Amino acid sequence: MPSGKILVAQGGGPTAVINQSLAGVVLEARRHHGIQRVYGARHGVRGIVNEDFVDLTQETSHNLELVAHTPAAALGSTRDKPDLAYCHEMFEVLKAHEIEHFFNIGGNDSSDTVRIVADEAAKAGYPLRCIHIPKTIDNDLVLNDHTPGFPSAARFVAQAFAGANLDNAALPGVYVGVVMGRHAGFLTAASALGKKFPDDGPHLIYVPERVFDIGRFLADVKATYDKHGRCVVAVSEGIHDAAGRPMLEVLAKDLHGGLERDAHGNVQLSGSGALADLLCEEIKSKLKIKRVRGDTFGYMQRSFVGCVSDVDQREAREVGEKAVQFAMWGGVNGSVAIKRTGFYSVDYELLPLAAVAGKTRTMEDHFISDSGTDVTDAFRLYLRPLLGSGMPDAFRLRPAAVPKVLRRGAAD
Amino acid sequence: MPSGKILVAQGGGPTAVINQSLAGVVLEARRHHGIQRVYGARHGVRGIVNEDFVDLTQETSHNLELVAHTPAAALGSTRDKPDLAYCHEMFEVLKAHEIEHFFNIGGNDSSDTVRIVADEAAKAGYPLRCIHIPKTIDNDLVLNDHTPGFPSAARFVAQAFAGANLDNAALPGVYVGVVMGRHAGFLTAASALGKKFPDDGPHLIYVPERVFDIGRFLADVKATYDKHGRCVVAVSEGIHDAAGRPMLEVLAKDLHGGLERDAHGNVQLSGSGALADLLCEEIKSKLKIKRVRGDTFGYMQRSFVGCVSDVDQREAREVGEKAVQFAMWGGVNGSVAIKRTGFYSVDYELLPLAAVAGKTRTMEDHFISDSGTDVTDAFRLYLRPLLGSGMPDAFRLRPAAVPKVLRRGAAD
Repeated sequence: MPSGKILVAQGGGPTAVINQSLAGVVLEARRHHGIQRVYGARHGVRGIVNEDFVDLTQETSHNLELVAHTPAAALGSTRDKPDLAYCHEMFEVLKAHEIEHFFNIGGNDSSDTVRIVADEAAKAGYPLRCIHIPKTIDNDLVLNDHTPGFPSAARFVAQAFAGANLDNAALPGVYVGVVMGRHAGFLTAASALGKKFPDDGPHLIYVPERVFDIGRFLADVKATYDKHGRCVVAVSEGIHDAAGRPMLEVLAKDLHGGLERDAHGNVQLSGSGALADLLCEEIKSKLKIKRVRGDTFGYMQRSFVGCVSDVDQREAREVGEKAVQFAMWGGVNGSVAIKRTGFYSVDYELLPLAAVAGKTRTMEDHFISDSGTDVTDAFRLYLRPLLGSGMPDAFRLRPAAVPKVLRRGAAD
Repeated sequence: MPSGKILVAQGGGPTAVINQSLAGVVLEARRHHGIQRVYGARHGVRGIVNEDFVDLTQETSHNLELVAHTPAAALGSTRDKPDLAYCHEMFEVLKAHEIEHFFNIGGNDSSDTVRIVADEAAKAGYPLRCIHIPKTIDNDLVLNDHTPGFPSAARFVAQAFAGANLDNAALPGVYVGVVMGRHAGFLTAASALGKKFPDDGPHLIYVPERVFDIGRFLADVKATYDKHGRCVVAVSEGIHDAAGRPMLEVLAKDLHGGLERDAHGNVQLSGSGALADLLCEEIKSKLKIKRVRGDTFGYMQRSFVGCVSDVDQREAREVGEKAVQFAMWGGVNGSVAIKRTGFYSVDYELLPLAAVAGKTRTMEDHFISDSGTDVTDAFRLYLRPLLGSGMPDAFRLRPAAVPKVLRRGAAD
């Protein structure tokens, strides 16, 4: 006899809308008479191995709606990347609690976890339905038009650069803004949507899909500065040299305190302002430009309260709802994906877990300009509808120059 | 015979609403039949000595309204701090162009410039009406309840910390957010308005009004981390030791590339992530906490497009309008100030320039808690109405724990 129990978990970096997907799962599941209990795992897969569950059946619909509009991960998240043994432990706990449906909201690591747990269940002959629900600000899931969380982070980046451009125009100099993204440059590229007038910044955009050469970078900055008297640069934290070494590592050879690395030996890229500072130092020392300022968008770009795409909100909600519907009526495991069907409309489909799990999408070539330092109109067309409604706009004066009387200062 | 010419300029750091004050001056001035021309100086006082003027009489009201809603300084700004000789040059240009009214929108340096130019005009017997219009995100003008620009920046800081707190709760660790403000801690203190639930961060707030002791800081962080399993910290870039040395300078003794200084020998505090990184390094190395992340809010906090207080918008507009009205009907020079009259209502008055010029307000003692690491309810009451309407709210799940079956993991 079926237990009627489902479990939902959230993994990886928080986003502005991951709680929409959570609410989508919980509220849709509670509509189904066969489902008696909706459990949530606290802090993702770690909460599963630790049996740290909460009963979401005992939560008001109203509060779930409010939580849906709150950024970050309401159940808590984790950076654990389960291996086979870890997944086996997870499965043992799911079995002990008679969980029949497992929903994991996350990126490509999370989808791989779902795949391994599903395999474990199949090997043991235990009837567990496993669905991966997409989420990542990096937009790096294959076979997805885009991933929930990316549009809101992209909106933050576009709005931040629109403001940084105005600030830089008021007090000219060089401005370097560093954006998240180890392998995929989508979020950094979103900075281009902050441009309006033809001489607006960001004037230069560096994504990890192209090799970063510090000499060419300095030449690009100098050329822009010579032309506009200022320069706004968007840089992905994941930029690297031809050998694949992160620029943070290349430039930080004598950095105070050394660099933090994860279990796989990867340099920790987020959570410090070092890359922006090092690039600014290069510009100051090599180009002799006085006013050089660096910002690192850090955790604000994924968690800022009050900058969210309404399109992202509704899609994140729907992938949660659809996950439950696919599980109830589809009869197969899988990964929910967003398919673009028009300008702008989407539909959802369930992909085989193995098609998505552990794979990384990067920016397609036709989204990057030949110069390698800008996006194409194809990318603008791709991204604009995702940013949602009510995007703030920037305006400037178009005033007439007043003839000089004393003839002081440079000609206008 | 009167020339009917006025000049308006913007100085110092851009804000989200300085263009509201500009529009307030221009649109109000254009209503007055006696005013034939409204000139704008490009890039502040520098545009005056360089005779770099634009004619704002030839701009549509509609575009002025749109520019009013755009952050940063539409006329351009400058960091020039005029001395007596510079002010004399400014006065010579104003005289040559037969300017009768001079409006300067800016902070305490800008008010001092207005004071000196007014003195020069008086000495020369030239009839020049000079009005300073307040603007600074630092909120450090004396005799003002608050200054336009501060409420919107405070809103950004509050929203950023609300999000950072949620992110930190999802993935626990220590988070250090560095906020602008060399002498005044108002903006850093605004982080407290991002708190909702009693265990929310920021758990610790460090303002420049109190001496910063690195040992006590580490003890505070450790105590909070031990209690909550996480710690969110708001730090002003202006924190300093007992001798008044900025902590950036104290901690950065062996920093890569050295520190930038201005003409007065002050260390450049903004535009780098160094202070956050150095504090994180101290926490990691001394407290052995693994996940320590630092963000520097940088230029986003003053220029982000799409995070603005509607109260700030309307007040910034009004100080511009009132400046023209004071000039037309008041017959004296002065500095426009915001006076709080109720909860929440304000009125405007014209203060003598010498009462405001060049003076710096810091946070009053009754706004800072005895611990020195939090604000008081008096500060919350002071700041909340300034943040405006539509502040986003954060919600959390209140779920019931599920009994363990295998008894894995720590007790809940």
